[in-house]
Amino acid sequence: MFTGLSAFPLTPLTREGVDEVAHAGLTARLVDASVDSITALGSTGSYVYLDRASRARVARLTVENAGSIPVAVGIGALSTRAVLEHAEDAQNAGAAGVLLAPVSYQPLTPDDVFGLFEDVTRELSVPLAVYDNPATTHVTFTDELYAAIAALPNVASIKIPPAAASRVPELKGLLPSGITLGISGDAAAATGLAQGCDAWFSAIGGTLPLLAQGIARPARAGDHPAALRESARLQPLWDLFAEHGSYRVIAAIAEHLELVTRPSLPRPIRGLPDETRVRLAAVLKFVAA
Amino acid sequence: MFTGLSAFPLTPLTREGVDEVAHAGLTARLVDASVDSITALGSTGSYVYLDRASRARVARLTVENAGSIPVAVGIGALSTRAVLEHAEDAQNAGAAGVLLAPVSYQPLTPDDVFGLFEDVTRELSVPLAVYDNPATTHVTFTDELYAAIAALPNVASIKIPPAAASRVPELKGLLPSGITLGISGDAAAATGLAQGCDAWFSAIGGTLPLLAQGIARPARAGDHPAALRESARLQPLWDLFAEHGSYRVIAAIAEHLELVTRPSLPRPIRGLPDETRVRLAAVLKFVAA
Repeated sequence: MFTGLSAFPLTPLTREGVDEVAHAGLTARLVDASVDSITALGSTGSYVYLDRASRARVARLTVENAGSIPVAVGIGALSTRAVLEHAEDAQNAGAAGVLLAPVSYQPLTPDDVFGLFEDVTRELSVPLAVYDNPATTHVTFTDELYAAIAALPNVASIKIPPAAASRVPELKGLLPSGITLGISGDAAAATGLAQGCDAWFSAIGGTLPLLAQGIARPARAGDHPAALRESARLQPLWDLFAEHGSYRVIAAIAEHLELVTRPSLPRPIRGLPDETRVRLAAVLKFVAA
Repeated sequence: MFTGLSAFPLTPLTREGVDEVAHAGLTARLVDASVDSITALGSTGSYVYLDRASRARVARLTVENAGSIPVAVGIGALSTRAVLEHAEDAQNAGAAGVLLAPVSYQPLTPDDVFGLFEDVTRELSVPLAVYDNPATTHVTFTDELYAAIAALPNVASIKIPPAAASRVPELKGLLPSGITLGISGDAAAATGLAQGCDAWFSAIGGTLPLLAQGIARPARAGDHPAALRESARLQPLWDLFAEHGSYRVIAAIAEHLELVTRPSLPRPIRGLPDETRVRLAAVLKFVAA
């Protein structure tokens, strides 16, 4: 489940809720590009901003439209009670795996984080990927916490942040052998894969899957220099991600390509300002060349 | 509404949901201690961990049990849509005001934060207090953002973090004259009040209201040296807050006094470890002396 290119699509939203037509269109692009898996309701899929019914609906729609491609579903929420509800809904929708970030409001202690994964993995019948995303959760995973959580039942993978790309061999040494490591932060993908990551949890892959395959395919074939060259070519895109966050930039890409209607992100999140969209259009023209 | 001692009670929880008997008991203590207002569903009231129905119920119960004491209700949530729902529920419950923190997952820009307050204040018919709590929201309010939000309709107060206690006169200079400033972070309360804060948004006041009145009453009478002396006497309590967060310490106090049943906090939050509870019991004996 958690190997290769896992594409994280947007959840296109309108004032009325999930735009199901646009959602189907985004999923079809992922099927056409033969991504290895789809993760619905990742950070790029706006999971934390949606209510339970919308999340259950998106999980179901993604599984229905993904054909034979396995679908993982993000189940994170502020309360453990809500996480368990989302886990139940995802499994009922036919998810082949789940992704869990320790979403926080009150700062979480390592005991809180371990306890969350303990409470949730106990109830699962599908594999789970641990979503370490310090920029949104403000949780710092120590190596000890990684190891303790990786030893829990049903834990299959850890989605590591870009800063950990250089530590992949070391991390592999301290985790059980069955646990895969997936890089996140698209700018670090080629480096992470070259360092031995088994998966790329890709934000850009959810909207521009062929662009992502331009890195994922040579990496899978062992041609890491080619993957790194392609990543370097995309640097103007990574620069925009660094300045504005991949979430807002990718939504603006999908809006620019008319894959979704603008505004596609949930309030309070505002999309990119118009002047940045002009720059983005030029970058897109360049990277597509 | 947002002046004097505003007490922030816990929302006592059991596995089944809100413990309504314990909740009524906590509210009665606040009525007996004649606090100036009650803020239900603040951070201390676990608001972000509760679903919509539980939050609406707590708002209603608090108003019912508060007698003539005005009740404000925390309405923060990750999505603007949910905030608007909570605002509607709070007003329908009879809240005299609302409190809004810009709860975040994706980092919020100043435009996002301003837009949130713009979208919400437009719909309100009661006054709103802006809840600036960087430790939980990870939002930094600049002076410009304070001023822009304070100019919106229905904005009545800003709940400032402890680090801003020394800047009260300066902040008052740049805000419209009708806006009150309330100090938060109980250890900074006496300082904030001495600096000219109009209100103390008090976590400890929600559970030990007489202890809080020991600071609030001399401050209200203009005897700031007495308020500062009393605050200094409570330093062992503030030390525990600094080490473990007021949220966990106050829940442990309420559990120790059997005002609520243990565990009273929502998972994934775990309560204080037992060894810290032993220390807490000694501190409570000392401060009550």
